[in-house]
Amino acid sequence: MADDQTLNLAGPRSERTRLKRYHWLAKYDQDTINGIIDTGIVCQVGYVIDQQPYVTPTNHWRINDYVYWHGSSASRMLKTQQRGIPVCFTVTHLDGIVFSRAAFNHNINFRSVMAFGQAEMCDEDVKRRALQCFVDRLAPGLWDYARKPTEQEWKATKVIRMKLDEVSAKVSDGLPDEEPEDLATNLWAGSVPLGLIQRPPVPDPKLREGIDVPDFVKNFQYLK
Amino acid sequence: MADDQTLNLAGPRSERTRLKRYHWLAKYDQDTINGIIDTGIVCQVGYVIDQQPYVTPTNHWRINDYVYWHGSSASRMLKTQQRGIPVCFTVTHLDGIVFSRAAFNHNINFRSVMAFGQAEMCDEDVKRRALQCFVDRLAPGLWDYARKPTEQEWKATKVIRMKLDEVSAKVSDGLPDEEPEDLATNLWAGSVPLGLIQRPPVPDPKLREGIDVPDFVKNFQYLK
Repeated sequence: MADDQTLNLAGPRSERTRLKRYHWLAKYDQDTINGIIDTGIVCQVGYVIDQQPYVTPTNHWRINDYVYWHGSSASRMLKTQQRGIPVCFTVTHLDGIVFSRAAFNHNINFRSVMAFGQAEMCDEDVKRRALQCFVDRLAPGLWDYARKPTEQEWKATKVIRMKLDEVSAKVSDGLPDEEPEDLATNLWAGSVPLGLIQRPPVPDPKLREGIDVPDFVKNFQYLK
Repeated sequence: MADDQTLNLAGPRSERTRLKRYHWLAKYDQDTINGIIDTGIVCQVGYVIDQQPYVTPTNHWRINDYVYWHGSSASRMLKTQQRGIPVCFTVTHLDGIVFSRAAFNHNINFRSVMAFGQAEMCDEDVKRRALQCFVDRLAPGLWDYARKPTEQEWKATKVIRMKLDEVSAKVSDGLPDEEPEDLATNLWAGSVPLGLIQRPPVPDPKLREGIDVPDFVKNFQYLK
């Protein structure tokens, strides 16, 4: 795992984001962190209401050093977060299963980011620009193509953002790390890689006749 | 989306797990909930330390009506959770991107479970049986094949469990749900399905010569 450390261009940004367990998997450089965030479409946002932890999966997107998520103006999550409460933002990609010689050493390969910060409700102007970025992030050109939101639709949506300040990544892409005596056995070890793939577009059955699949869908690539 | 409701065999188990937003996506029946949990290898566990929310991605597995996760005896997460604090457990699968005619209606298809409960540290006996289930859950027969844990390895691992009591699922597998005036336009709409696939096993470069890929790896299927 020593090779992993060559990517650590920067140290942890706070005590809270310093990886204590499996610290050799830690990455603190911006390219690694942004890459993991940008490859994901779903994040998990943790927050507290009356001492109770909540974790909500939601879509996210990044603009410079902020991550954004949106939701209905009436949602409990957004109503709570707009008060500026502490949040924990995570993105996790599962990359494979590691089969080891020792039962104790079975593991998974993954990439994850964890960030701590304060939720911040975006004002109307930031919100509108951020939502346009979100739609264009799904597919470049989609905002121009789609029917624009009505005033009522704009009002129904809120956008929360969080500054990427206290943030760390964890990347496990190795093969089994085993005891010398296990390596000497006749047991098999290795990994089974897992990854997301996309399948061909499925047209809406309500699609009117003669509408071609637009380029932004033809060229859509989940993994850029 | 009305069809989704035919799967709702039971109502929400608490006010906290009653879906308020997009309530027509809610599922409260055990088969749907267990299916989503069992298809996932990585969950997100939310908990609170000094008012600060933490969300930790970790491996999980289910035995009857409990979900389990494990970690190093020295980990901050497990040290905190063994006190029996409230946790929020979530599993999320991304199934696709929904492209709509209206910018406002873009969405994703997904399956998620959210459960609230108390973390409970397993005693030595439950821990050992639970970890055996975890290894065999990765691949049936793996526990028998692998080198068993030493006493030191057993000591280094703790297992936390949580009863699946207050739990709900949310399943979005639809196509765009749009306004009649948008359906009448010449804009394309549909979805791009996404899914996890597995690739052929990669042997450990340190594998001794002449060791065949065992059946449990040959037959490994991430999605049962």
